[in-house]
Amino acid sequence: MKKQFNCLILVSMLLAVTLGVQSQEKKEYPKQMGMKPEMTEWWDPQPERVTPGEANKNAFQSAPSDAIVLFDGKDLSKWQNSEGKAAGWRVHDGVVTVDKSKGDIITKGEFKDFQLHLEWSVPKDITGSGQGRGNSGVYLHKLYEVQILETYTQETYSNGSAGSIYKQSAPLVNPSRKPGEWNVYDIIFTAPTFTKDGNYRTPPTVTVQFNGVLVQNHVALQGTTEYIGLPRTVVQETGPILLQSHADPSEPISFRNIWIREL
Amino acid sequence: MKKQFNCLILVSMLLAVTLGVQSQEKKEYPKQMGMKPEMTEWWDPQPERVTPGEANKNAFQSAPSDAIVLFDGKDLSKWQNSEGKAAGWRVHDGVVTVDKSKGDIITKGEFKDFQLHLEWSVPKDITGSGQGRGNSGVYLHKLYEVQILETYTQETYSNGSAGSIYKQSAPLVNPSRKPGEWNVYDIIFTAPTFTKDGNYRTPPTVTVQFNGVLVQNHVALQGTTEYIGLPRTVVQETGPILLQSHADPSEPISFRNIWIREL
Amino acid sequence: MKKQFNCLILVSMLLAVTLGVQSQEKKEYPKQMGMKPEMTEWWDPQPERVTPGEANKNAFQSAPSDAIVLFDGKDLSKWQNSEGKAAGWRVHDGVVTVDKSKGDIITKGEFKDFQLHLEWSVPKDITGSGQGRGNSGVYLHKLYEVQILETYTQETYSNGSAGSIYKQSAPLVNPSRKPGEWNVYDIIFTAPTFTKDGNYRTPPTVTVQFNGVLVQNHVALQGTTEYIGLPRTVVQETGPILLQSHADPSEPISFRNIWIREL
Amino acid sequence: MKKQFNCLILVSMLLAVTLGVQSQEKKEYPKQMGMKPEMTEWWDPQPERVTPGEANKNAFQSAPSDAIVLFDGKDLSKWQNSEGKAAGWRVHDGVVTVDKSKGDIITKGEFKDFQLHLEWSVPKDITGSGQGRGNSGVYLHKLYEVQILETYTQETYSNGSAGSIYKQSAPLVNPSRKPGEWNVYDIIFTAPTFTKDGNYRTPPTVTVQFNGVLVQNHVALQGTTEYIGLPRTVVQETGPILLQSHADPSEPISFRNIWIREL
Repeated sequence: MKKQFNCLILVSMLLAVTLGVQSQEKKEYPKQMGMKPEMTEWWDPQPERVTPGEANKNAFQSAPSDAIVLFDGKDLSKWQNSEGKAAGWRVHDGVVTVDKSKGDIITKGEFKDFQLHLEWSVPKDITGSGQGRGNSGVYLHKLYEVQILETYTQETYSNGSAGSIYKQSAPLVNPSRKPGEWNVYDIIFTAPTFTKDGNYRTPPTVTVQFNGVLVQNHVALQGTTEYIGLPRTVVQETGPILLQSHADPSEPISFRNIWIREL
Repeated sequence: MKKQFNCLILVSMLLAVTLGVQSQEKKEYPKQMGMKPEMTEWWDPQPERVTPGEANKNAFQSAPSDAIVLFDGKDLSKWQNSEGKAAGWRVHDGVVTVDKSKGDIITKGEFKDFQLHLEWSVPKDITGSGQGRGNSGVYLHKLYEVQILETYTQETYSNGSAGSIYKQSAPLVNPSRKPGEWNVYDIIFTAPTFTKDGNYRTPPTVTVQFNGVLVQNHVALQGTTEYIGLPRTVVQETGPILLQSHADPSEPISFRNIWIREL
Repeated sequence: MKKQFNCLILVSMLLAVTLGVQSQEKKEYPKQMGMKPEMTEWWDPQPERVTPGEANKNAFQSAPSDAIVLFDGKDLSKWQNSEGKAAGWRVHDGVVTVDKSKGDIITKGEFKDFQLHLEWSVPKDITGSGQGRGNSGVYLHKLYEVQILETYTQETYSNGSAGSIYKQSAPLVNPSRKPGEWNVYDIIFTAPTFTKDGNYRTPPTVTVQFNGVLVQNHVALQGTTEYIGLPRTVVQETGPILLQSHADPSEPISFRNIWIREL
Repeated sequence: MKKQFNCLILVSMLLAVTLGVQSQEKKEYPKQMGMKPEMTEWWDPQPERVTPGEANKNAFQSAPSDAIVLFDGKDLSKWQNSEGKAAGWRVHDGVVTVDKSKGDIITKGEFKDFQLHLEWSVPKDITGSGQGRGNSGVYLHKLYEVQILETYTQETYSNGSAGSIYKQSAPLVNPSRKPGEWNVYDIIFTAPTFTKDGNYRTPPTVTVQFNGVLVQNHVALQGTTEYIGLPRTVVQETGPILLQSHADPSEPISFRNIWIREL
């Protein structure tokens, strides 16, 4: 697996070199073909570990009366898969567990500015390491990922840790709870506005509280959150929420109690 | 000329004293001496009522490990009164109750940017009305008040309702809990920076979650929160937290579980 | 004059007191009926005087090729009066001079975000004093006034000086040219966006260069620029440019070379 | 595993050295060692061409009275080279012309927030192409480059065009004047503030008018402007102005009339 990956990098670099010398065409993203995932990883410093308070530990925080309840433990009627068909994840015991064979799930509704609450938990006996251990994510507007990952027992690149804006902004601290416990995200999102030329007039901003601890403080995003390459500006004023079905081989994570308030 | 003007001032001051039950000795800009408290009240629209979720109702949300615990239910060792002497409020049953004869209490420590958590509750059988019913406030940097008031059972001017930035910004909604229950404030504050001329270079900003519901969304303050007159710019980069002992005749409110995280 | 004025203050205060006592209805602006213009004047400190550079003194700065030329010295075809009829100011010698009997003039076109250039000059032998000496203004979106006033030879309240955002933001310095010379304003404006409740989501912002000197540095407006009372939030995403015909008795000012670039 | 990776780095470094004509010794984050300059170039769209107005064409715009004159046509007494010794560029005819054998020149003074004016001109008969034609730059705080380049007659990557924030923000339009004429930059800069952890608390912001046309509108920078790799956050609250001596083989450019106003 890893070997094949390195092989791929080698091939792509050779291609990049071949292309790079002559590449003077005005195409935008091909210029980044030689970029490798690790070029946008930041490892140092690691977010300081913080033990969150006890109150919301394993407590189910029910929705305010003006919220749209996206998942109340019973069904996925507010969600669909990427083809617009029924969301196929497993609902059981008041939670929904990722089915990696079914892909991402996406809200049917679209939102502009919002306050979003969700809770997630990885299995107590989860295996895997790095980005291959309890990896998922919540994509705001389907474009901007707040990372979900098991980072209580291990480290990864800071801007890929739980609570990061993926590859853009490391969490201020790491207040992860241990596998088997529930983690809580409270997210405040302001949608971008755009110039007539398709650039940001005002960028999207994100605030995240992670188990009650501030980890993203009104951060202005540079663009989409990319695995490889640089953030892009996508002209889109509203969008759905997407929960990621990540391809890593670790045991799947579960979600519960998801609600959103339009601002 | 001056004499007439002084005469006018005298008349208006007498009126102000007569009208303003809680007249404070803060000095106003001379030009604003004729301003009356109601000139900076906004009544319409009233914030929409929202029933908050159940989880943190009456739940004691303990502090994260990197927080400074300002009040843990046991003593007021982190606080003093306005003369720098021992804070005289009544500590009992894990809470602290305002003693109106003792005045405001103020943290000994000063803070710049921070995340602040506190919980407050008014007596189940509280009396009084308007701004005279369970009135208190948490002053950030001792200058900027997030209003505390019993506004579950009654209305007041919007920018003086619980969760308002006093006389500057009404709460987005009103998620108050009823008298006898505990309310929770989670506040994110960014200190101002100043130009060499003493104006704001960047204004103070405040985000407030009230019982888990966003009521102030990264609001840029115009200055201090004044009872009478317009906001003022005070050149001060750090400051303590002040809890207000309000002169209204209603039964005193209680606080518990106060902690702060420096950002 | 002054005596009459004090008399007026007395009357208005008495009225305010009479009204104020009973005013508990939930009407918004009537609460400010007792406000007087001087309550929102700031006199101290006065903006420091700066002598601007020589290059653009009396030089006619022609428009870039992508600008909409609003006045090129020949006619007022891009303007109308407040009734939507022909703008009646006097065009002569490549300039346009205010005709106070004809009222304000307003662009036919509306704009969102923009860069605006204009030049203005008061007569060499202008009379009057305070706000009664060469008073005019350029209203962005017809709501937000950048003050125009003869403040080379005299002082007024700082937030009403030339280059101020009227009654909101004093100019950083005072680089006025003397009567008879041309002054140049280069203005960058970003339109506000609004929440669904009609509050600012992002406020309007203004940058002003006055004779090449920065006097307003990306200032966030609090709302409309009012002569009496507090700024108001008006839900309006685009608007015209208005040039003010002020009722003061001084000799009228002239404009030339007005152009705008939509951003 | 590690061995293979090191091997890859070695290969890519050799390639980078070979390809990167102007390879600099700045240290990159190790993870970015494989990054190539073209990975951070954006070619599409090109900034629209605009013909600027005539007024400041070839006109010498003298400094306001409160400015610090950095170059008045007579000497380089306010400047030094990168070793802190005398700045060796050629002063003649009221201008200063780059001497590429002498390296960059740097102001002796440091600044925080400022308004900066400068004028530059490339020879009428300049040769070279792309980034090798009249390349220079003005570095704010010695960290953030506003690009200078002959882009009247030719195109380059947008975020490396004249008036760009180098490799971060393309100019809104391209109002370049032709070789032999004078171009004018008016720059407003706000210095960053930092969190205790060394991240941006508020980012640096830049506004640029280029020949009187707005090309950067209060842009929030992501960090330093790097030739290779991603922007970095450098904790520095003030800094000097640097004018770049670029290693390209084209005829050197000249500057005149440089002044700065501290805000």
